[in-house]
Amino acid sequence: MQTHVVLIDCPDRKGLVHKITGVFFRGGHNITRNAEFVDEPAERFFMRTEITGELDERALLDGLRAELPGPVNIRIADGRDKDVVILATREHHCLADLLVRHAHGELEANVQAVIANHATLEPLVRRFDVPFHHVSHEGLERTEHERRLLGVLAGYNPQFLVLAKFMRILSGDFVARYPNRIVNIHHSFLPAFVGAAPYRQAFDRGVKIIGATAHFVTPELDQGPIIAQGVIPVDHSHSAAAMAEAGRDVERGVLAKALRLVLQDRVFVSGIRTVIFD
Amino acid sequence: MQTHVVLIDCPDRKGLVHKITGVFFRGGHNITRNAEFVDEPAERFFMRTEITGELDERALLDGLRAELPGPVNIRIADGRDKDVVILATREHHCLADLLVRHAHGELEANVQAVIANHATLEPLVRRFDVPFHHVSHEGLERTEHERRLLGVLAGYNPQFLVLAKFMRILSGDFVARYPNRIVNIHHSFLPAFVGAAPYRQAFDRGVKIIGATAHFVTPELDQGPIIAQGVIPVDHSHSAAAMAEAGRDVERGVLAKALRLVLQDRVFVSGIRTVIFD
Amino acid sequence: MQTHVVLIDCPDRKGLVHKITGVFFRGGHNITRNAEFVDEPAERFFMRTEITGELDERALLDGLRAELPGPVNIRIADGRDKDVVILATREHHCLADLLVRHAHGELEANVQAVIANHATLEPLVRRFDVPFHHVSHEGLERTEHERRLLGVLAGYNPQFLVLAKFMRILSGDFVARYPNRIVNIHHSFLPAFVGAAPYRQAFDRGVKIIGATAHFVTPELDQGPIIAQGVIPVDHSHSAAAMAEAGRDVERGVLAKALRLVLQDRVFVSGIRTVIFD
Amino acid sequence: MQTHVVLIDCPDRKGLVHKITGVFFRGGHNITRNAEFVDEPAERFFMRTEITGELDERALLDGLRAELPGPVNIRIADGRDKDVVILATREHHCLADLLVRHAHGELEANVQAVIANHATLEPLVRRFDVPFHHVSHEGLERTEHERRLLGVLAGYNPQFLVLAKFMRILSGDFVARYPNRIVNIHHSFLPAFVGAAPYRQAFDRGVKIIGATAHFVTPELDQGPIIAQGVIPVDHSHSAAAMAEAGRDVERGVLAKALRLVLQDRVFVSGIRTVIFD
Repeated sequence: MQTHVVLIDCPDRKGLVHKITGVFFRGGHNITRNAEFVDEPAERFFMRTEITGELDERALLDGLRAELPGPVNIRIADGRDKDVVILATREHHCLADLLVRHAHGELEANVQAVIANHATLEPLVRRFDVPFHHVSHEGLERTEHERRLLGVLAGYNPQFLVLAKFMRILSGDFVARYPNRIVNIHHSFLPAFVGAAPYRQAFDRGVKIIGATAHFVTPELDQGPIIAQGVIPVDHSHSAAAMAEAGRDVERGVLAKALRLVLQDRVFVSGIRTVIFD
Repeated sequence: MQTHVVLIDCPDRKGLVHKITGVFFRGGHNITRNAEFVDEPAERFFMRTEITGELDERALLDGLRAELPGPVNIRIADGRDKDVVILATREHHCLADLLVRHAHGELEANVQAVIANHATLEPLVRRFDVPFHHVSHEGLERTEHERRLLGVLAGYNPQFLVLAKFMRILSGDFVARYPNRIVNIHHSFLPAFVGAAPYRQAFDRGVKIIGATAHFVTPELDQGPIIAQGVIPVDHSHSAAAMAEAGRDVERGVLAKALRLVLQDRVFVSGIRTVIFD
Repeated sequence: MQTHVVLIDCPDRKGLVHKITGVFFRGGHNITRNAEFVDEPAERFFMRTEITGELDERALLDGLRAELPGPVNIRIADGRDKDVVILATREHHCLADLLVRHAHGELEANVQAVIANHATLEPLVRRFDVPFHHVSHEGLERTEHERRLLGVLAGYNPQFLVLAKFMRILSGDFVARYPNRIVNIHHSFLPAFVGAAPYRQAFDRGVKIIGATAHFVTPELDQGPIIAQGVIPVDHSHSAAAMAEAGRDVERGVLAKALRLVLQDRVFVSGIRTVIFD
Repeated sequence: MQTHVVLIDCPDRKGLVHKITGVFFRGGHNITRNAEFVDEPAERFFMRTEITGELDERALLDGLRAELPGPVNIRIADGRDKDVVILATREHHCLADLLVRHAHGELEANVQAVIANHATLEPLVRRFDVPFHHVSHEGLERTEHERRLLGVLAGYNPQFLVLAKFMRILSGDFVARYPNRIVNIHHSFLPAFVGAAPYRQAFDRGVKIIGATAHFVTPELDQGPIIAQGVIPVDHSHSAAAMAEAGRDVERGVLAKALRLVLQDRVFVSGIRTVIFD
């Protein structure tokens, strides 16, 4: 039997769970998993429900909207793999991990293509029979480079973009086209070491733990809502290069974890914070 | 406003969340936090709900029982500190941690007394103005030792017993008096290294990670439902004694975590497994 | 300048570090990294030294043997990639990770071939232009299956075998041909859950942390010296299948870590324990 | 037999290990543990050696200085407990942990006294029969407050100060009196969230992991050499207060770990980084 995921966020009111589950119950749906959260400072209610049973999406939406206070956001996901395009530069570790998972049906996404601003990764992508587009940024203004990226993306129309170590900063205009739909892996434990060369910064500061952060991209660099973070211990014997090497495994793991959460419709965005039902 | 926690487990049925929240709604209660879980193999439903509002406990129980399929377990907790007695032997680290938390109002429990089968810890307990009872096991049959322990316990009538490195094995008869009400900290990552001298066993085996396990005590030694576990890395330079020293911090942390979960009414027992809403 | 790694283990005596470093000093070698360990119960001394400078291996060995008490083991590694053959069955996650690292020059090994007892993984291996041998075990006695495996291995003569989720138990005779040269990834936190279906066992026991163990293979199943272990938290919401899925990332990471240690000549075996200089 | 720890740092040269161990060998000392590190960018050599045997400290220093290039730092520690004074404010968790360890002989330090700028913690300190000094900062300039602190400290002459949640910022003049001898626990994962209210900052940023940092105090706030760091996962359900509560256990553990390293003479300071042999 098919499972749908229903994501609701709305102002908090007394009796919401009872009202919402009433709509499901009268619609003949069985709840197989359910979670709620009330953001008390924001006075906002979040609920994620997995339901089974024949679904009349229009009727369900109407039923829910009739019971809920506005402004309300309702998303219904049908469990099908989502279309994604991966952007990369020259580092292979995150990209390869996603390609391997995709090739073995573990990603819960349909990787439509990989776009990179260098040609380095083309042989790797070709191994997995995924289209590869080299869109160089060399000698181009950012606006023009992004125009070309958007040109390639127009042919795919993906639901999500994944920045798998894509080392270009995207403009606010570009980001605005994919609100909370671009997932980036940042090579530091944000908000420590924002900006360039974070492993160098970490080495210079002499930290004993390094990390990685997966987040949605917003126009403010490295300031988007955090989805997942991971860490690994280091010590004085790690050079900046050794920190980067140790960090790659963390980056890969954190990006994979964040994508799983996003692709399984487990992530709400609330301001610059996320609410995640895992 | 006072908060109550309602814990329900019963056979799984369609519509349970709607029915239960209906009882709360009609009773004028506001749900501030809610979590459910369906144990599909066991076809059993678990729900933990925090509600506010005036509570007529009898009416609430009657209302819930009328809606729910049997056999159903319902517990209503009023958020008051629970009475506990701590049992110990000679090691201070877990006991001291609990006494410090208790002295500063962080334990969510009323530590009525400490009972130990050695006198070693008496000075520590006295520092915290908690009654200390030395009930030696020397020269006694287990039955007689337990009879004396029960004699002391009779004066307190605690809801929970905490075995904070109590190194005596309790009989099935003793355990049966406190079903799922005795919390033990075991100095290994169960089920590895059951029985005596687990750090010696861990050293001999050359493991790279050691751990600790907090669990409810059942008549079968080291087989009770696990509440929390923690680990710490070790290496070849750790002697068995150094592993034990490293392990003490883990034991202390795991016991504190497990107690917090138990004392906040977050733990269900389902066979030899636990369902925990944290 | 080329770096060599010198690994020495011998009975512990006063003055060993001075004597050994004297041999290096007189030979004109510079020590760039050095570590020692004395296993006090075993009264045995372990030392790993990285040296630079022109190396006359024969002269160095003679010089060291003249200074050291017997029985002494001395290994000199020249830093070249080691030849390895990977054995697998049907699961891809560990194998794919090794193939990706190998393809990008990060493995410090030359993967000569992959041998599997099922054909499932052939397409994956082919993507990476590595020879694949399907040596089915179906309908064969273990002796005969191992005879065929050894036949394929004879064509490669690898220094190490890597069991990347190879689900067949190897005989003592087979293992004896590769003493401390077969690295296995076991899908549990040994010594918990030895034997078959460890994730099922872990689920049934209701553990809150699962893990993986990389170890050298010895004739006694799951009893070989442990090289690396890793863990990940789980809870009641993890089915046995979900535990296995969570475990796969740990297995992959632990195997990669153990291989890095082995391939960089950082691992000594001392009885059923390892001494590791990382 | 008594063990001494010898700590040497000096410019890196070829043959240093051989020369230094020669001094130990000729002095009749047995090396029971030894570790070296070369900071290649700084071209500096660090070595920590545990030796046994009768010690003529003057002769050993002379012997080492004759062999080593300058500028060289040599410290010889005799393994006796070091004198420390603890400074605190109102939070008890770190202080209580140290007092418990001290009372049971686990701290490797002699806690001479506790000084606090509030009286809150006096009852706790009294429980452990340790002198307590209330030195209020109210209505005082920092200079005057520090003058009073120094007045109390003059009566103890401690080797190390431990800031166990001491919430006053110390002046450069004060810090200069205890170079690399003041250990502070900072309630964040430095360098993230420097300054005030780090848990509030962490909550606002929506991080998924929080941490704590133990470091030597230098005149630049929160910029001293890091000794140890620890982390704990959090999620959207943690309020800023809940993050602070979760963080307290990390703070306590990280401070205890850092102190153990410092008190066992395992920590070198190299610029704003530490070199630690654990």
